[in-house]
Amino acid sequence: MSFVKKSMDELARISTDEYIQRSKRPIVLVLENVRSAYNVGSIFRTADAFMIEAIYLIGYTACPPHKEIAKTALGATDSVQWQHLATTRDAIHLLKEKNYNIFAIEQAQPNISLEKFDWEMQPTAFIFGNEVNGVEQDSINLCDGCVEIPQWGTKHSLNITIAAGIVLWHCISSSL
Amino acid sequence: MSFVKKSMDELARISTDEYIQRSKRPIVLVLENVRSAYNVGSIFRTADAFMIEAIYLIGYTACPPHKEIAKTALGATDSVQWQHLATTRDAIHLLKEKNYNIFAIEQAQPNISLEKFDWEMQPTAFIFGNEVNGVEQDSINLCDGCVEIPQWGTKHSLNITIAAGIVLWHCISSSL
Repeated sequence: MSFVKKSMDELARISTDEYIQRSKRPIVLVLENVRSAYNVGSIFRTADAFMIEAIYLIGYTACPPHKEIAKTALGATDSVQWQHLATTRDAIHLLKEKNYNIFAIEQAQPNISLEKFDWEMQPTAFIFGNEVNGVEQDSINLCDGCVEIPQWGTKHSLNITIAAGIVLWHCISSSL
Repeated sequence: MSFVKKSMDELARISTDEYIQRSKRPIVLVLENVRSAYNVGSIFRTADAFMIEAIYLIGYTACPPHKEIAKTALGATDSVQWQHLATTRDAIHLLKEKNYNIFAIEQAQPNISLEKFDWEMQPTAFIFGNEVNGVEQDSINLCDGCVEIPQWGTKHSLNITIAAGIVLWHCISSSL
């Protein structure tokens, strides 16, 4: 059997205008004091691919327009809805008003190991913390639970952009 | 209910020596002419977390020791086994001798959409291509199939490090 790469036309990507009008998956990523603007941009690109509701940028997390975000987002800041909020508490307050379930992606006790996490297509927000310190304990205290990505290696964590991609794929693939 | 972040001790990460001795998941990532050494390092970090067999670095893909790889691998080049091969053809030849199933991660026709891909814990290699051009058609022709990560956004692809994280999680989570 032969396998042939799709052309750009065959990929049939939609325009930014069309993207904005389509209904999104009810998932919000909350980025709490993320240090690297490159990481923020990368998460925008993934959020675009998986057509999620929005990204909330918290505290000192860089916001578009931003040169380093643009370099990794590759234009996804025009398609993905986002807003900046001063604190994670503000974000959680807003999300609870919209009936979102809220989970920190964190290595905590107790936790739900990601392979057991069942999204069920419910409005859900995932909080990702700073690259060094993770999600703040004060923020965790306001969540409905902690979801942990199991790991077996020598390093203490995954990169935040990889963790976000994995969590989104885990949720979305269960609905396909 | 209260959720408390695990301490470094509670994470109970293993040493590099212990890591090297443990049995690995029979998955090999083949990185074909990857342009960014930061991307290579990031994939090492993910490979460490998920305890996979090896990474094959092909063609002009940067190899350790390398300053930019080190910056994103955070030491995972010491734990994860790797080797450099001149061409993807060489890598596929070696992998077929070891009875690996070989899949390109590529948007191609026909393809297996990732959510339908069943790893079944068999020795499996995934080929990831250059950031701009993807996997070379000559390499695809030698594969057992193409696995595609479905996408709904405006951009034409996911970042290679995110794609690798998603593919590894998809396989490994099915075995947990």
